[in-house]
Formats: sequence, C-alpha cells, structure tokens
Amino acid sequence: MREEMTKIAVLGNGSWGSVLGSMLADNGNDVTFYGNKPEVNREINEEHTNKHYMKDWSLNPNAYATDNLAEALKGAEVVLFVLPTAAIRIVAKEVKKVLDKTGETPLLVTATKGIEPGSKKLISEILTEEIYPEHEERIVAISGPSHAENVAQKDLTAISCASTSSENAKRVQELFSNSYVRLYTNDDLIGVEVGGAVKNVIAIAAGILVGKNYEDNAKAALMTRGLAEITRLGVNYFGAKPMTFSGLSGIGDLIVTCTSVNSRNWRAGKQIGEGKSLDYVLKNMGQVVEGATTVKAVHELCEEKGIDMPISEAIYRVLYENSDVDAEISEMMGRDPKPEIRI
Amino acid sequence: MREEMTKIAVLGNGSWGSVLGSMLADNGNDVTFYGNKPEVNREINEEHTNKHYMKDWSLNPNAYATDNLAEALKGAEVVLFVLPTAAIRIVAKEVKKVLDKTGETPLLVTATKGIEPGSKKLISEILTEEIYPEHEERIVAISGPSHAENVAQKDLTAISCASTSSENAKRVQELFSNSYVRLYTNDDLIGVEVGGAVKNVIAIAAGILVGKNYEDNAKAALMTRGLAEITRLGVNYFGAKPMTFSGLSGIGDLIVTCTSVNSRNWRAGKQIGEGKSLDYVLKNMGQVVEGATTVKAVHELCEEKGIDMPISEAIYRVLYENSDVDAEISEMMGRDPKPEIRI
Repeated sequence: MREEMTKIAVLGNGSWGSVLGSMLADNGNDVTFYGNKPEVNREINEEHTNKHYMKDWSLNPNAYATDNLAEALKGAEVVLFVLPTAAIRIVAKEVKKVLDKTGETPLLVTATKGIEPGSKKLISEILTEEIYPEHEERIVAISGPSHAENVAQKDLTAISCASTSSENAKRVQELFSNSYVRLYTNDDLIGVEVGGAVKNVIAIAAGILVGKNYEDNAKAALMTRGLAEITRLGVNYFGAKPMTFSGLSGIGDLIVTCTSVNSRNWRAGKQIGEGKSLDYVLKNMGQVVEGATTVKAVHELCEEKGIDMPISEAIYRVLYENSDVDAEISEMMGRDPKPEIRI
Repeated sequence: MREEMTKIAVLGNGSWGSVLGSMLADNGNDVTFYGNKPEVNREINEEHTNKHYMKDWSLNPNAYATDNLAEALKGAEVVLFVLPTAAIRIVAKEVKKVLDKTGETPLLVTATKGIEPGSKKLISEILTEEIYPEHEERIVAISGPSHAENVAQKDLTAISCASTSSENAKRVQELFSNSYVRLYTNDDLIGVEVGGAVKNVIAIAAGILVGKNYEDNAKAALMTRGLAEITRLGVNYFGAKPMTFSGLSGIGDLIVTCTSVNSRNWRAGKQIGEGKSLDYVLKNMGQVVEGATTVKAVHELCEEKGIDMPISEAIYRVLYENSDVDAEISEMMGRDPKPEIRI
C-alpha cells in the first residue's frame, strides 16, 4: 500500500462504479462517489451496500457517497467516469464548471464504454471537448474483460489503461493494480475505447448462433471475424492502431461478452435466434440492450464511410429490417472469397 | 460444383483427415486416403465409416482408401497432410521418393499443427526441406477453429489458408470452401502455423483456471495474454507477422481450444487445477496431451532466445518442476507493471 492516500472521485455508482470505487478504497485511496439517487448514497454511506446493482456484496466502509458534485470533486487528483454514455456529456459540462471555479486539474479516467449517438464520438473525445480541449493527455481510458461481479469476487482480471501520456497511464496502472487486478498500459487511447463500444453488436450475433444451435467452430469464427470488422472500423474511422484490437480491450472484452451468460446482449441475441421478435425481447429484458442501439450508429458509419462490416450489417437488417437470420447466414457464407487480413 | 474433378491425396485418416477428405469429396473432388492401418482402409472402403475416430458418421462413399502411397499420390494435383507431427518427416521422405519417380509436382497442403521436437521446425518448413527445397510457394497451410466433429455436423466453420503464393492459397480456398466452410487467404504461411502449434499450452492453463474455479474475467485475460506471448514467439523466433495472430489461426483457434470441453489439453489442465498429478492425468487421459510436449519445446526456445512467455513458463514449471499453481498465479499477478503491446 502506498504511503499517501490519493483522493479519487467516482462519478456513477452502478455495479461497475461501485465495485471499482470500493476496490480503489481497498487499494488505500480516499474515495468519494457522486450519484444523483439519494437513497443509493444513503445505502452506501450507512449500510455499505448497493443491493439494486450488487447482491450479497459490501463496499469498503471508508468510501463515501454524495449527490453534491462539487463536494465529490473537491481536492480529487483523479476523477473516474463510470456513467451511462448518455449522461457523460451532461455531467462533463457540470464538472467543467466546478473545475473552472476551483482551478484544479485532476486526471480524468473513463470506464464508460460507448459511442455517443449523433456525433459518433467516443467517451474520451467528449471529455476532451468539454473539459480539457487542449489537454487530451489528461484523459485515461480503462477497458478490458471485467464483469463487475467477477471483480467483486476477486476473480483474476486484466485491464488495459490507455492515454496519450505514458506517465498518466502509469499513474492509473499503479492506482488500480492489486493482487487480483492487473493493468497494462497502452498508448492507443482511441483504440482501447473502440472495442468496448462496438463489441455488444457481435455479442448479439453470438447469442443468435447459440439460439440457432450452432457449435464451437461457429462461435469462434464469429468472434474472430467480428474482431476483424471492429478493427476495420477502429482503424479506418477512428484512427486506432490495428494491434490494439488483439489486446484486452479488443478480443479480451469480446470473448467475455460473447461467452458469458452474464451478458445482456448475448441473452437478447439468443432469444432472437430462438425466433422471438426484437420488440418482445426488448420489452422482456428489463434492462438496456446496448448493442441494439450501437448497431444503428455502426450501420450509419458503414454507409457513410464505406466500411465493410458484414456481421454488424446483418445484425442491423435482422433487428430493424425484418431480415431472416438463416438467409443472412447463407448470404454471409456465400460472399466472394476474401483475404483474411484486410484493414 | 466445379466442372472438372481435382484428384486429391489425403495422407492420414484420423478424425480431421477423414472429415476433411470426405468434405473434399462432397465438394466434387476425387479423393484417395493414404493410411497404414489396413482395417481402417477396409472400413472406409466397404462401410464408409471410421468409427474409432468418428462415431455416428459416414464418409462420402466415393472416397477411397489405400495403404499404398504411390497409388494414393498417382495423378494427385493436391496432397493433403493430416498426419501426427511425429510422422510428417518420415512420410515426407517417402512422398519425395514417389514424386522423384513420377516427376509430378502437386500442391502440398498441411492441416497438421505442431512443432517438430529437437529441430523446432513447423510443418511447412519440414515439407519444404524434404520435398520442395526450392519451391516453398507450393506449400499451403490451413488452420483455424475447426473441431472435426463440428465440421462433420456441418457447423459453420472459418479457416485460414496461407501460402507465399497467393495463387496457390486461392486454389486451396476454392477447393475447400462450400456452404458451411469458408476459407480466407493469408500470405503469412509461418504465422498461420505458429498459433495452432502453441495454443495447446494455453489450453492447459485455461483448464487449470477452471479446475481452480476462476471465472469469466480470468479466462478471457488468460486467452488474451496467452495470445500476446504466442505472438511474441511467432514474430521474434519464427518471423511471423503480428496481425496474423488476431486471425482464425491465432485467436480463433485459441478460443475454440480454451473454451470447448472437446479439447483434451483443456481437460488435462482442469484435472491438474483440481489437484491431480501430471502422471495421473496423462495415464488416465488415454489420448495424447500435446500441450504437455509442446511446452517443453517452448520452454527451450524461451531460454535460448530470451523470449518472455510467462504463462507458458509457469505451465512448464507446474508440469515438470512441481511448482504450485497458486504460487505461480501470485507471482504472475505481481510481475513488474508492463505495457500491453510489447512484441
């Protein structure tokens, strides 16, 4: 444990936010959660639990929760964003106002995975725009195969942390690492964010294959060819480095999302594969199926930029144009023969 | 189906050889198996089955089997090697003798995955040395996530086919592709072979994690970091291209081997994770656990060439130096912090 405590503000107290914040407190840091639900904050402060998101689990009792953003940010050296994609820009504007008053310049870490509808921007791009327009190096993204439930159980977990500043990436690596979570630094900030943002589309496809009773060969082929098209999008549209997609935030996160029954997107896909309609599935999941939204942004990018993403495009047609899954599979298997590496 | 039949000799009639040969006959080719067990040849010719390897499955009745190598090779435009690694050099020498007599120059395709003990050579390197010392471009390697049982059931399957000659890779792509098997050409012959040869070491590690009750995060981290060290070996020792390992013969094959109960190496690892000894496991598997042999060659390469492969080295110590699994995991998680992409 380090000698001095680092003050960390954790914005968002859903399952991943709670687990990361509590782990950072376990690692010896001074953690304050910011969240807008008073009853969740009260539960964290008084009972040290967050039962709506994490059953049978307790937070580090030293972590404190507030609905006052300025209080959470006061003195923070690191601000961790673990909010839904839709909330990032709104909260970033508020953070900017507070920092403008205090003159503080904390490191911003994003653990949120997503693409902003409309702008097609990644989280680090939104944070740069809204908070540090001339200091992108103060943003660090963390991403990798990390179900919150597994980290809460202290399952071994490996995560990428990426920044254009190697010093800032190393700072986050040191703060987050412990005996069961190991971080690896990466200099491809954008690339590390793309995999996590797009993987849920492929997870729906993986679920569909299982719903249709395809076997191990088909699942491995889907993940690999899914990775190939995510890489194509990342390199050609976002300017990412191709090798980033072989790492924890690329194939690592894709594997965990496409093989775990914990993934909502996978479960939604499985029901679609079994013949249920998208409307039925979305109504009965009771939770957001992010891939069903992401695939719309991906479809627009494919059309606008001419990027070849056959699996994502097939999922789009199945979800929104009533296309038949079996016909899409035949079509995909019958495409012109292709070279494997084609970025 | 193409108009003219291509004559193909399939050397080896185990499970993968039988399934590939029968599929090539289904695709409209004239297929002859070569194998040294007369009773298997008789069963293939008379009953169109190969029950020792593939239960409840029939071969294409037009495929013919012989123990006469010259007969199998006569007129063959393509010779497919699907033999155990240990038999490749011996049979290659015999093939060379036959071809020297006939003057024929068939394309050689390898579906065998392995590294030759001692020489540390890959299969295409052995075939080049023994048969076509000045014509490496006549060798094509096929590799990818392809359990024979799944291909026999016509599960969707995607495979890489690699050659230094794009024309020869395309020829194999055309011969092997059909409505359920799709091949992708690749120009990195060596790279496509490395993944399949080394993956079984990581599969043992994946089994150990399951035997020790680790969860999804740990399994995805292992596959991703396992891929990173296979890539390091492939690039630094064999001269492979890094991006090849993101493909079907790299991460694709690793996924299928590390997640499927069909994998012997995974099953062996699981028992070791549960506390059984290597001797006990090897005696009770009744089948070869290739990873336990491959890890010795990998260990020698790491020592000789100074390649950093922490997972493979830990498996070596667990299997052959009585090292404790939990101690190895703590050691690995506590290594100095590292950048993610480090080839």
